[in-house]
Amino acid sequence: MLKGWPAILTLGWILLALSVGAVGVALFSLTTGDGLAPLFAEDAAITAGIGGTCILSTMGRTFELHFRDATFLTVLAWFAVPCFIALPYLADPLDLSPVDAYFEAASGLTTTGATVLSGLDKLPHSLLLWRSFSQWIGGMGIIGFAIVILPFLKIGGMQLFRLEFSDRSDKRMPRARSIAMAVAEIYVGLTVLCFLVYNLLGMSAFDALNHALTTLPTGGFSTHDASFGYFKSPALRWAAVVFMLLAAMPFLAYLRFMQRGSLRERMDPQVEAFLLTIAAMVVLFSAWLVTSRAFNVGDALTESAFNIVSVVTTTGFASQDYLTWGTFAAVWFFALTFVGGCTGSTAGGLKIFRFQMASRVVARHVGSSIHPHAVVPLRYGGRLVSDEQVGSVAVFVFLYLASIVAISIALSILGLDPRTALSAAATAVSNVGPGIGDVIGPAGNFSSLPDAAKIILSIAMVMGRLEILSVLLLLFPSFYR
Amino acid sequence: MLKGWPAILTLGWILLALSVGAVGVALFSLTTGDGLAPLFAEDAAITAGIGGTCILSTMGRTFELHFRDATFLTVLAWFAVPCFIALPYLADPLDLSPVDAYFEAASGLTTTGATVLSGLDKLPHSLLLWRSFSQWIGGMGIIGFAIVILPFLKIGGMQLFRLEFSDRSDKRMPRARSIAMAVAEIYVGLTVLCFLVYNLLGMSAFDALNHALTTLPTGGFSTHDASFGYFKSPALRWAAVVFMLLAAMPFLAYLRFMQRGSLRERMDPQVEAFLLTIAAMVVLFSAWLVTSRAFNVGDALTESAFNIVSVVTTTGFASQDYLTWGTFAAVWFFALTFVGGCTGSTAGGLKIFRFQMASRVVARHVGSSIHPHAVVPLRYGGRLVSDEQVGSVAVFVFLYLASIVAISIALSILGLDPRTALSAAATAVSNVGPGIGDVIGPAGNFSSLPDAAKIILSIAMVMGRLEILSVLLLLFPSFYR
Repeated sequence: MLKGWPAILTLGWILLALSVGAVGVALFSLTTGDGLAPLFAEDAAITAGIGGTCILSTMGRTFELHFRDATFLTVLAWFAVPCFIALPYLADPLDLSPVDAYFEAASGLTTTGATVLSGLDKLPHSLLLWRSFSQWIGGMGIIGFAIVILPFLKIGGMQLFRLEFSDRSDKRMPRARSIAMAVAEIYVGLTVLCFLVYNLLGMSAFDALNHALTTLPTGGFSTHDASFGYFKSPALRWAAVVFMLLAAMPFLAYLRFMQRGSLRERMDPQVEAFLLTIAAMVVLFSAWLVTSRAFNVGDALTESAFNIVSVVTTTGFASQDYLTWGTFAAVWFFALTFVGGCTGSTAGGLKIFRFQMASRVVARHVGSSIHPHAVVPLRYGGRLVSDEQVGSVAVFVFLYLASIVAISIALSILGLDPRTALSAAATAVSNVGPGIGDVIGPAGNFSSLPDAAKIILSIAMVMGRLEILSVLLLLFPSFYR
Repeated sequence: MLKGWPAILTLGWILLALSVGAVGVALFSLTTGDGLAPLFAEDAAITAGIGGTCILSTMGRTFELHFRDATFLTVLAWFAVPCFIALPYLADPLDLSPVDAYFEAASGLTTTGATVLSGLDKLPHSLLLWRSFSQWIGGMGIIGFAIVILPFLKIGGMQLFRLEFSDRSDKRMPRARSIAMAVAEIYVGLTVLCFLVYNLLGMSAFDALNHALTTLPTGGFSTHDASFGYFKSPALRWAAVVFMLLAAMPFLAYLRFMQRGSLRERMDPQVEAFLLTIAAMVVLFSAWLVTSRAFNVGDALTESAFNIVSVVTTTGFASQDYLTWGTFAAVWFFALTFVGGCTGSTAGGLKIFRFQMASRVVARHVGSSIHPHAVVPLRYGGRLVSDEQVGSVAVFVFLYLASIVAISIALSILGLDPRTALSAAATAVSNVGPGIGDVIGPAGNFSSLPDAAKIILSIAMVMGRLEILSVLLLLFPSFYR
């Protein structure tokens, strides 16, 4: 008998929230008079019906995290929800093929931000809002997944971030629920704040709403083909930099900060490393823009901060086509695709804590190579790290890179050129959005790719979103035994 | 006081062998009358003088492997020896710049096979022979390093291949020396056999000698710009396939086979995995050539076997410009750059046993994710693998990939296009030879790269050759304390 109630419940709430969003978009559509209200109303009804059934079916159950059922249903949910998001894309005026619609929906839900659409500036506003909302709800889902479920799966070293409540059998559910609620409130609060700031700094209310909805989930969908390049104000870019950074930080850190009022006490060790890394990258890349590309210092700082933060936080907004900045920029932004933000946020990629872990393991290894008899325990954020946890991080990094290689090879068999194949695989698995090259770079989109490639990349986005191993586990026969 | 006698002794013998080779090439030059004999005689004198001094200075010393001194001198030796190889390149008729000469010499000694030369077909034969000989002597050096020194450095999991004699303090040196001698005999024997087979199958004696000297060290220098494509005989290609495979196998396995007469008894677990992987790759790629590129079955098998074995064994011979076979081939051969052969041979790359180790660690991790209470020990070739050894492999893979990323970024800053930068970094660190793209692909060469790029790639080749960490260790201040 299945005991994956947490996942069913989660799926139910996601679908309900999705349908509330669809109702909202339907109402919005009525005010704009674009005639798409029935489309969204229909989607809302279907989604609410199925979501409600999920929630009702879990009523009165005790909350137990059973690893296999939770994994199975989580993966199924993340592959299924894009179908509900995709429905409005199938009809007029987009008339997307099922593959394109699923790709766009999966890219939304996984907060990747890769798109098959162009001519965004002329699309009905209700459709643009629906796209943005799909990222926002996906971001909410992934934070919940990262905080509540992932640490139990022992995947990719996430067990390091297991909450204290995981060790006690009683009062588990109320605490998990109250933490999830508090994190959701922070997410909503930051979104509102982001909207206000964008609006104050000159975006129209509609643009501010959409970009707030896609900034907080580090998603990157825009209402303009030129993405953030449409807005010429440096102040807006810096505002986006701040909110993208806020969105890529561990949300539990906000909770702790609000509860204790102190930044220092047991601060998540990711935060400092993340901010210092970003600062160093921005300074170095700005220096290069000034010396090699004749930027003035102000522009160099703004453009490099915006685009570096956009890629590293896996948001994927573009302010300019940075690929026109020459060969170094192309390799640099390709390398950045892999970095990622902090875990416990909506950012994808390898994530900062895995680099921290890797550098600590390397340092310890170097130390023990030089002084073979020294025994140095590995610590992270005050906790002792076990060999099993190190192994779990190593396995994640290996599977992450192996997936990108395998997907690149598959894409190249379909005829994509090597650069497009490799960067499409990397940008999908890391949930960044744009790739490198003319086709899928910040100035292009994914529409011209063959259907098979879009299907592979849709799967890659969900795999990347769920830390890969949770999806791969389902392919092992022993998982079902 | 330095106690790195083994390394000094090794360096001394390498230099002496190098000078013997230079004498041989000088004599050969006399028979061809190309007037280069004095050049090689001079090089022989300088090299023999310094090599002899090294050997004499170690006379009467007891043999002790002191980790730090051995590492320091090994690294110095591998950076210094190319200077002695490069001397003849500086003079007429090549007149190479010091940077080009060092690059060509380092590419030779590290058995990489990347070249800055073109017009090989018209070069004086003595120079071609000298190039080929530099690879052959480098191959001999790296096998000795891999068998005698590396297992003690705990680098990249090589301690798994530590010889039995390492645990006993007495009779260490006689056994190490006798094993090294036996391995050297096998290396010489296979080279002679390779020469005879190439000659019998239609190569001129000169071509057969050169290609035998560059096949056994998995080097890849040729006497023709068209590399193996100059020879049209399929039989010759298959002969090269066999000898490249033989060269990429663990040489200790031959020793064991000759001593015990059995293949089964404690066979090195790399061998089976290596041969099966190659076979699977050849079959799959041939099928693709037949279905997508209209090759007939025979040609498809020959061309894919030759080029796949050439890249995976890190030899780098080319029979055709496989990059003209389309996008899949480019991505495929780029991915193959990373694979590598067996450890204990002259092959570079990540090497088969690390993939075996990674897949075992992943399998164990998946198993423990599904059945959290199962405890499964990790075994490799009948030995229990410790967490420390797994960590050592993980650190190697991480540093290997991180080096390639860092070198790619450096090369792109110098203006190389992304594809050339990335594949140059990969092919140098893996000691393969040709890269991907028009510039450094199998149909191109490295001459047009800026000097700074050639210096970086020369360092990368030596780093890759010495398993990276041994070079990086020297950058840590604590190494010298």
